[in-house]
Amino acid sequence: MAERSRSFRAWVWPPPPIAPRLWIALVTSALYSAIVWAVYPFVFTGKQAWADELAVVNTAVLGVLVSFRTKIAYDRWWEGRLLWGQLVNNSRNLCLKARELAQLDAAERAAFAGLVSAFAVALKRHLRGSVVLSEIPGCERDPATPAHVPAHIAGRAIAAVAQWRAAGRIDGHMYQTLDAHTSALMDICGACERVRNTPLPSSYLSLLRHALMLGFAFTPWALVHSIDLMVIPVQAAAVYFLFGIELTAEEVEQPFGFDGDDLPLEKYCETIRASAEDILRPGT
Amino acid sequence: MAERSRSFRAWVWPPPPIAPRLWIALVTSALYSAIVWAVYPFVFTGKQAWADELAVVNTAVLGVLVSFRTKIAYDRWWEGRLLWGQLVNNSRNLCLKARELAQLDAAERAAFAGLVSAFAVALKRHLRGSVVLSEIPGCERDPATPAHVPAHIAGRAIAAVAQWRAAGRIDGHMYQTLDAHTSALMDICGACERVRNTPLPSSYLSLLRHALMLGFAFTPWALVHSIDLMVIPVQAAAVYFLFGIELTAEEVEQPFGFDGDDLPLEKYCETIRASAEDILRPGT
Amino acid sequence: MAERSRSFRAWVWPPPPIAPRLWIALVTSALYSAIVWAVYPFVFTGKQAWADELAVVNTAVLGVLVSFRTKIAYDRWWEGRLLWGQLVNNSRNLCLKARELAQLDAAERAAFAGLVSAFAVALKRHLRGSVVLSEIPGCERDPATPAHVPAHIAGRAIAAVAQWRAAGRIDGHMYQTLDAHTSALMDICGACERVRNTPLPSSYLSLLRHALMLGFAFTPWALVHSIDLMVIPVQAAAVYFLFGIELTAEEVEQPFGFDGDDLPLEKYCETIRASAEDILRPGT
Amino acid sequence: MAERSRSFRAWVWPPPPIAPRLWIALVTSALYSAIVWAVYPFVFTGKQAWADELAVVNTAVLGVLVSFRTKIAYDRWWEGRLLWGQLVNNSRNLCLKARELAQLDAAERAAFAGLVSAFAVALKRHLRGSVVLSEIPGCERDPATPAHVPAHIAGRAIAAVAQWRAAGRIDGHMYQTLDAHTSALMDICGACERVRNTPLPSSYLSLLRHALMLGFAFTPWALVHSIDLMVIPVQAAAVYFLFGIELTAEEVEQPFGFDGDDLPLEKYCETIRASAEDILRPGT
Amino acid sequence: MAERSRSFRAWVWPPPPIAPRLWIALVTSALYSAIVWAVYPFVFTGKQAWADELAVVNTAVLGVLVSFRTKIAYDRWWEGRLLWGQLVNNSRNLCLKARELAQLDAAERAAFAGLVSAFAVALKRHLRGSVVLSEIPGCERDPATPAHVPAHIAGRAIAAVAQWRAAGRIDGHMYQTLDAHTSALMDICGACERVRNTPLPSSYLSLLRHALMLGFAFTPWALVHSIDLMVIPVQAAAVYFLFGIELTAEEVEQPFGFDGDDLPLEKYCETIRASAEDILRPGT
Repeated sequence: MAERSRSFRAWVWPPPPIAPRLWIALVTSALYSAIVWAVYPFVFTGKQAWADELAVVNTAVLGVLVSFRTKIAYDRWWEGRLLWGQLVNNSRNLCLKARELAQLDAAERAAFAGLVSAFAVALKRHLRGSVVLSEIPGCERDPATPAHVPAHIAGRAIAAVAQWRAAGRIDGHMYQTLDAHTSALMDICGACERVRNTPLPSSYLSLLRHALMLGFAFTPWALVHSIDLMVIPVQAAAVYFLFGIELTAEEVEQPFGFDGDDLPLEKYCETIRASAEDILRPGT
Repeated sequence: MAERSRSFRAWVWPPPPIAPRLWIALVTSALYSAIVWAVYPFVFTGKQAWADELAVVNTAVLGVLVSFRTKIAYDRWWEGRLLWGQLVNNSRNLCLKARELAQLDAAERAAFAGLVSAFAVALKRHLRGSVVLSEIPGCERDPATPAHVPAHIAGRAIAAVAQWRAAGRIDGHMYQTLDAHTSALMDICGACERVRNTPLPSSYLSLLRHALMLGFAFTPWALVHSIDLMVIPVQAAAVYFLFGIELTAEEVEQPFGFDGDDLPLEKYCETIRASAEDILRPGT
Repeated sequence: MAERSRSFRAWVWPPPPIAPRLWIALVTSALYSAIVWAVYPFVFTGKQAWADELAVVNTAVLGVLVSFRTKIAYDRWWEGRLLWGQLVNNSRNLCLKARELAQLDAAERAAFAGLVSAFAVALKRHLRGSVVLSEIPGCERDPATPAHVPAHIAGRAIAAVAQWRAAGRIDGHMYQTLDAHTSALMDICGACERVRNTPLPSSYLSLLRHALMLGFAFTPWALVHSIDLMVIPVQAAAVYFLFGIELTAEEVEQPFGFDGDDLPLEKYCETIRASAEDILRPGT
Repeated sequence: MAERSRSFRAWVWPPPPIAPRLWIALVTSALYSAIVWAVYPFVFTGKQAWADELAVVNTAVLGVLVSFRTKIAYDRWWEGRLLWGQLVNNSRNLCLKARELAQLDAAERAAFAGLVSAFAVALKRHLRGSVVLSEIPGCERDPATPAHVPAHIAGRAIAAVAQWRAAGRIDGHMYQTLDAHTSALMDICGACERVRNTPLPSSYLSLLRHALMLGFAFTPWALVHSIDLMVIPVQAAAVYFLFGIELTAEEVEQPFGFDGDDLPLEKYCETIRASAEDILRPGT
Repeated sequence: MAERSRSFRAWVWPPPPIAPRLWIALVTSALYSAIVWAVYPFVFTGKQAWADELAVVNTAVLGVLVSFRTKIAYDRWWEGRLLWGQLVNNSRNLCLKARELAQLDAAERAAFAGLVSAFAVALKRHLRGSVVLSEIPGCERDPATPAHVPAHIAGRAIAAVAQWRAAGRIDGHMYQTLDAHTSALMDICGACERVRNTPLPSSYLSLLRHALMLGFAFTPWALVHSIDLMVIPVQAAAVYFLFGIELTAEEVEQPFGFDGDDLPLEKYCETIRASAEDILRPGT
């Protein structure tokens, strides 16, 4: 099944979300190629063999580094996706089990659904910058001012389960099956922090960017003798794809933001809220 | 063992399931090549070196992007397969343990087998579009109208196990081993939703399609001078394979549909129904 | 350590297990190349540039598809191996724990060892075709005629553990640790069924085979002008390796059969039987 | 989202952290190329075809080995990152559960937070060399002199949980959920030791380095005839990228040190300390 | 951090551990190339185009097969490493928990530490050939003569835990957390057996070796016309790297032996022994 993008138009349009930064590279490339074209006859005569040799080195290095970079950036994006998927699953199972095992009354149901929703919202904001507990929907009246807001909310969920156990509403076995889901909250939070805080080792990034810049700089000198003014579109095509792949990798390895390639965290939070309220609404 | 496709015929026929869309690309390609062939002498004289340089860029970019795309699309398809395999395993183990541990009578056995089958059918329909609880076989008399039907049915399974525990038919340890399987239901559902709802980051898709379109557009201009009318079949072969791989990736990354490359969800649902009824039929 | 194949002879002989089908391809290739060699002068004069261009397309496509295909086929084979390794581990741990925890007498020990061995044999036969319960060694006197024999035997193991619990021979905690191993039986069975029943998406297979057939068909036309009669051995070498890799992938992705590249299921069943009897023999 | 490195400057500067060792290689390369340029006319006349053939071999071998090496080195770095992420998660969950389940008083809270922090610091120092228990913050008054300091501290955490259980402050089920986190401490420690102590099989390393040295040695002889003095920058570019990738791999496969590409263990230890104290401060 | 191999000397020396077998290939290669050089003028005149075409096929096939082979061989080696790392972790956690939970006296501590050490030694010897129980340090006085020595020792560990439970020294929950570690012993043993006993499917191995032999045999014929006597060192370089990679893969896929590339099992056994004795020495 291929439900999206069946139309021809999706093949030529729209430009990738990274386009704004890419246009800058393209315009720069065109100007630079034009300058090379104008200057070349005054500098060199004939084909420059060294430029071809440099192109061989550059292509081989970019082949290794670009694949490597793309793979790693995507893996990070996909891991972010997996983690939010696990959060959805855990939130649903936690609500389903709380409903069946702990015999919650209507007020408790609403409170617990709110707690589960609040964790997702807090994690979303935490990953995007600083978060204040009192600004999280459902936590406005919590007087605490914790440094780590998701940990505070996860602590409240762990405390709720511990209190059900202390009050004899669930037995030890039920406690264990609920604990699996409350422990998962901080595991997911920590793993998301890891995705956000761990850039590619900077030596790889430097080597890749230097290879891209080297290719950008010398390619017109290699091409201009044989293809003349056509150096401008050919160089532009190379820049479009190679810089496009690198710029996409930069976006994708940080999947928790607001760009077109980022994960729709708002949607996931809404899914969790709707599921929690659906499962824990009174009378089910 | 290679039990399928031993015949020679399987090597040349049938065309891939994506063929209908591919024919369109092939016909377009042939027309376009023919036009280039006719127009070329009026536009250019001699070999166009720039086209060769563009081909080098295009080939390198497609090499990286097509491998990457194919790997990711297949991984998603295979994850869908893994998830439905886990659903089969969980359904069987859940039925086997319910039979041995909870001492179900004949009516309860039939009801529980129906519940397990209903989850699979509900998940299948949920993944393919919207689903109404009263249309699921075995749930026709359930008066609820939940927004999320698989979650409702999983909730009923969790409730059944909780009731066996409350009634003292199973002990806490047995509850824990059954809970592992009932929790898995929503984990599988959530993971399937993730596979269905997460397209490749759109920048990668744009870059790949633009590279394919660029190759489609300029390749005949690069070839027609040296191979004349043979540009039509050569271009067609390139389009057949490259567009074929991309169209297959589009199908495969959405594995829950009805196409020839999609997973046979009907078969899996039937396996689950048959297993559940076989395991829970009275007298075993 | 490289204990096998140290001899020089292992480097040149024997031919791969897929050889019988490969010889057919080689002979066909030689005949076809000879025909092309004979016919070429009557059809073309001079080097055919289009054939070189086609070779570029074909090589690039085969490069992507053959790597992809090989990786996936091997992964399936290796997963089959992992699963049978898990079955060995589970069988041993199940027997060790049954011995230490449930205080089995000599007859019970023999019966339980037989049950563990029977599951492995039943799974092996189930994966290779249909299986009848009364033909499984140790189950000859079981009157049941289940549709799914491994599920029946796994059910008997689950029932045995449940009965030990009901009889107070093991406590609930011991039940849980035994349950992990009895649940694993059906998980392994389901995963093996998945490996066996899930071919590569057929579009990929069609595209790969069409690329191989295209290469087979046009390569002699590309080569014969420059290398004359040597086209026969060169084409044969290409066919030997490319078709050899594809035929091996066909064998390897179905690892539960009888061929030279398949997994030695008989050996694994024998290991399980010997381990179970060794662990559960009276007096240990 | 791509929050870091948006500036143009980040694309050209700074040099990778491995730069100091790389400069040595670059200077050596320039000197060597210059010598080859000076000596060549006295040794050879005309293009040396053998050097081209050697370049083909060298490029193919480097292509396979460099990708392989880079992948493995990075995987080790990333595994180190995963493990420290798990340590953060476990530390937080352990503190949250200790707080809710064991009813710790203020002194016990502080002591337990100190124990959790001390494990992280001890592991960090253990991975970087030898560590003495009395130098770990919070363990200054512990009279033991264990050979393996992290194991000693993990043992104290296991002992604390066992004492809570023995004193009846937690029940058996709570003990089990806490045990999951205390067991994880030594699992993480052992896995970090594995990352640190397991170099790439030395044959692969020898082959890769010999291929790099061979390329270094003969490339100028291959290029100098056609590109004359430009051999110096072209060779330098090749050395910059190829030796740069290898030197980065050497850094990255040992991720627990102090270099620019290493993991910020100090930061992780501080995160653990701050989280533990935040969660376990009195009054929450 | 790159603590090993910082010296220049490590880049040129020593030869890889596989060198002894590689020298044979190199000498054979030199002799063969010399013969081809001497014979060529009597057999052919001029450049042989077919040899170039064969080189294209051979290079492409080797590119796919060598990468595939290297990846798989390394994965097996790394899995062996992972498994022994898990054994270290399990041994330590088992000793730590036994100490804290079961209140062992001095003699019991020594006996249990001996049991844990004995399992590692037995597994090491089992993986390298046959093993006799009475030759394992610490098991000299065990009268049993089991067919599978590691299973026997794991059985004794399982029995010890079961006896502590039966004697009321640990409760059921503690039993469960100890069981996780005793079950892991046979899981690790089975997985190591799997690594040792599962060669690459022999068709892949045949195809790879035949491609290497084909390259070995025809390459001098392809090169000798253009590079004359230099065919000897060029061919030697190709043989050095390609056969070197294959010979390394042969060593590495069997990681439990005694060669320079094998895992240091003695060191792991010693680590386990030292850790067990350190943790379980009286008075801690």
